Amino acid sequence: MSMSHGNRTKERLVVVGGDAAGMSAASRARRLKGPDELEIIAFERGHFSSFSACGIPYWVGGDVADRDQLIARSPEEHRARGIDLRMRTEVTELDVDGRRVRSRDLESGAEEWTPYDKLVIATGARPVRPPLPGIDAPGVHGVQTLDDGQALLDTLSRTEGRRAVVIGAGYIGVEMAEAMINRGYEVTVVNRGTEPMATLDPDMGRLVHDAMEGLGITMVNDAEVTKILTGEGGRVRAVVTEDAEYPADVVVLGIGVRPETALAEAAGLPLGTHRGLLTDLAMRVRGHEDIWAGGDCVEVLDLVSGSERHIALGTHANKHGQVIGSNVAGGYATFPGVVGTAVSKVCDLEIARTGLREKDAHRAGLRFESVTIEATSRAGYYPDADPMTVKMLAELRTGRLLGVQIVGGEGAGKRVDIAAVALTAGMTVEQMTSLDLGYAPPFSPVWDPILVAARQAVSALRRTTP
Amino acid sequence: MSMSHGNRTKERLVVVGGDAAGMSAASRARRLKGPDELEIIAFERGHFSSFSACGIPYWVGGDVADRDQLIARSPEEHRARGIDLRMRTEVTELDVDGRRVRSRDLESGAEEWTPYDKLVIATGARPVRPPLPGIDAPGVHGVQTLDDGQALLDTLSRTEGRRAVVIGAGYIGVEMAEAMINRGYEVTVVNRGTEPMATLDPDMGRLVHDAMEGLGITMVNDAEVTKILTGEGGRVRAVVTEDAEYPADVVVLGIGVRPETALAEAAGLPLGTHRGLLTDLAMRVRGHEDIWAGGDCVEVLDLVSGSERHIALGTHANKHGQVIGSNVAGGYATFPGVVGTAVSKVCDLEIARTGLREKDAHRAGLRFESVTIEATSRAGYYPDADPMTVKMLAELRTGRLLGVQIVGGEGAGKRVDIAAVALTAGMTVEQMTSLDLGYAPPFSPVWDPILVAARQAVSALRRTTP
Repeated sequence: MSMSHGNRTKERLVVVGGDAAGMSAASRARRLKGPDELEIIAFERGHFSSFSACGIPYWVGGDVADRDQLIARSPEEHRARGIDLRMRTEVTELDVDGRRVRSRDLESGAEEWTPYDKLVIATGARPVRPPLPGIDAPGVHGVQTLDDGQALLDTLSRTEGRRAVVIGAGYIGVEMAEAMINRGYEVTVVNRGTEPMATLDPDMGRLVHDAMEGLGITMVNDAEVTKILTGEGGRVRAVVTEDAEYPADVVVLGIGVRPETALAEAAGLPLGTHRGLLTDLAMRVRGHEDIWAGGDCVEVLDLVSGSERHIALGTHANKHGQVIGSNVAGGYATFPGVVGTAVSKVCDLEIARTGLREKDAHRAGLRFESVTIEATSRAGYYPDADPMTVKMLAELRTGRLLGVQIVGGEGAGKRVDIAAVALTAGMTVEQMTSLDLGYAPPFSPVWDPILVAARQAVSALRRTTP
Repeated sequence: MSMSHGNRTKERLVVVGGDAAGMSAASRARRLKGPDELEIIAFERGHFSSFSACGIPYWVGGDVADRDQLIARSPEEHRARGIDLRMRTEVTELDVDGRRVRSRDLESGAEEWTPYDKLVIATGARPVRPPLPGIDAPGVHGVQTLDDGQALLDTLSRTEGRRAVVIGAGYIGVEMAEAMINRGYEVTVVNRGTEPMATLDPDMGRLVHDAMEGLGITMVNDAEVTKILTGEGGRVRAVVTEDAEYPADVVVLGIGVRPETALAEAAGLPLGTHRGLLTDLAMRVRGHEDIWAGGDCVEVLDLVSGSERHIALGTHANKHGQVIGSNVAGGYATFPGVVGTAVSKVCDLEIARTGLREKDAHRAGLRFESVTIEATSRAGYYPDADPMTVKMLAELRTGRLLGVQIVGGEGAGKRVDIAAVALTAGMTVEQMTSLDLGYAPPFSPVWDPILVAARQAVSALRRTTP
């Protein structure tokens, strides 16, 4: 049922997508405007709203006991706050000129049109599923949604064999490798790139590679999967590359995601080179006064290179939602962009990056020096001072920090935040050498590893451009 | 033996004080200029060079097994690098007009004058030892030097009783309380202030208080020590305040330090309101072309309030030394100032601060809003997500960040670095709300606690100054 557009006395906001960006936007708008001023209808095709996809590897790995812990706010909770959230209802068309969306109830098959005054597109991303023979076989699992996670857990509980192959070695791939190790599996990671974690430069990826092998994970790099073999009952049996065959009782796809923008594209909305929606800084779809978009379906401005990127990450989606919710409700907020910070871990190894890799800097036309230093996360004499490696890039002539990559033990990863703030502020590595960072032996050597790297970068720049 | 000034063909640098600032300066200068160009003579009255005073509580507490681990570079190592380091030799007079220093060999009593072309003053700080009856009794210990630490350890090994009283509840006091707990002592901390950790606002200090009591430490606040009672053999027996008497088998003084500037004052060099030497940004003593000073004997510019402070901290001393060494050797470097970052821990409780407390902001004439938020160090659903409290101050109208205080579990403390960089960059809390900080469930909730505090600060400012 939808009221006819002309008869409505209050504004109606329609939200497409009931996860982080969409429901943050809806919730923020609701806090700013009550149900008397603003009607909010949200459509979600899945079974869950506002869940932490980033938490799925830890649920599968057993660190998080219960699926429901990953749900930040249930559909009932949203409804209790005055948001008409319609679950299992897929939006199948955006009629931008007519200011309405068409939706289908996935249970009943019923379709209807819903008019809007303001529209938020938060359709998220979809996992890359290469069209390989056998990719849809039982025992092959993505891990994007809670349903995916549950299906994988069901498979694990039914499967006797203990051989897992993870395809892909980015964040999801390495986190799922850890999860399967924690579940007691023999794990092989099959990776297309020269080293795992292509979000790092290969020299830093090599450190991750070595550490993963040290954990008993078999790492296969430079390997293109050509097909997935099935056996008894059509179930997965092996993963085949150009060079070899890897027996598998379960296969996890960790290949990454692409913006889910088919609806937006069909409606003629502007997409970027990564196929994500393009917005202005207020997260409004470019050229469209009353349409906003956020989360995994948009491209974001990279503040270091000045170009657009696609980054699927819950923390950005939440920020987008806040900004959209404020603007939709007549307030003012912006999302200025990202510097590309990410942090992850494989067992005790922490991996972090922010800013540009060498490849990114080259692509952006920047010339730079790069330094790599070894240090410890605490004072060397303090117990459990773990080694950490920091790579730092700085631009020639300006001396501006361009990026930092970190691989190391406990306490290494979140140090990337120091560099993230410095990048945001446009600091030079010279300025960074005198940063007043927290020092005490249990927390840091007297020169924090980030300061050591900055000092080396200053020296390197001085040698190159005296 | 010293060459007469007029006959020297190369420059001579004289360094007064053989610890972090002095020996960093000497080492940096030596790297930039070889022995043929620059002669370096350094005087140290103690038995050790370049040691980590910050590590002493962990040595006393048993986390660090061996004293020598706290020595970054021994006198022999310095000498092998071409620095004429004279141990147990106290400088007793600075003759600024005559460009020479008088020193006394503490073993032989022999005195001599040593001319200099360039002088570095790095005389450090001395512990506050109030002139209380009994303060010099056996069993009462400071913990500033390695000799102090050894003397305390000797006392502990000889003492049967297990009651320790720590006087003072700043960094040294709380770290020594932890050390004595780790040694199996019953610990009472007697504190002059209303709460421990006067470098925090009292509301945050209260959290430290509660946590310390939770560790079984007896906390006595608002208590002025009036005398120390001695018993058998003149040894310490109890600490007496205006209101009570606390039995003690050992007493640790953790009252803080003052700049050691008697020599500099006698020489007519400029001191600030905290009795520290005043320097320019190149760490040159104001008004003196060829005299530099750094480390615990100088005052530093607080970049947030714009006024001078005295902060005795190894990480600053090392930076000062690097800057001085570069400048002495004809290079160029500056130390722009501090934002007042510090981090510490008591057992599993992490304590950190940067920027201004409420009191500092009032004193600096700043009007501000203050918010305090509760969060967790990791995603709430992730194992070992420890609670953390963040207090944030932001200036009215400009919205500029003024300070952050953190008390919480593992992973809480070093987050202060995010705020330290933001303060250095002069960021507003609004700008901070979109910082691209590292997010993954084992490292942070989807909104990092610093972001949560920044958002609350923005809301608070909006309410006050719409």
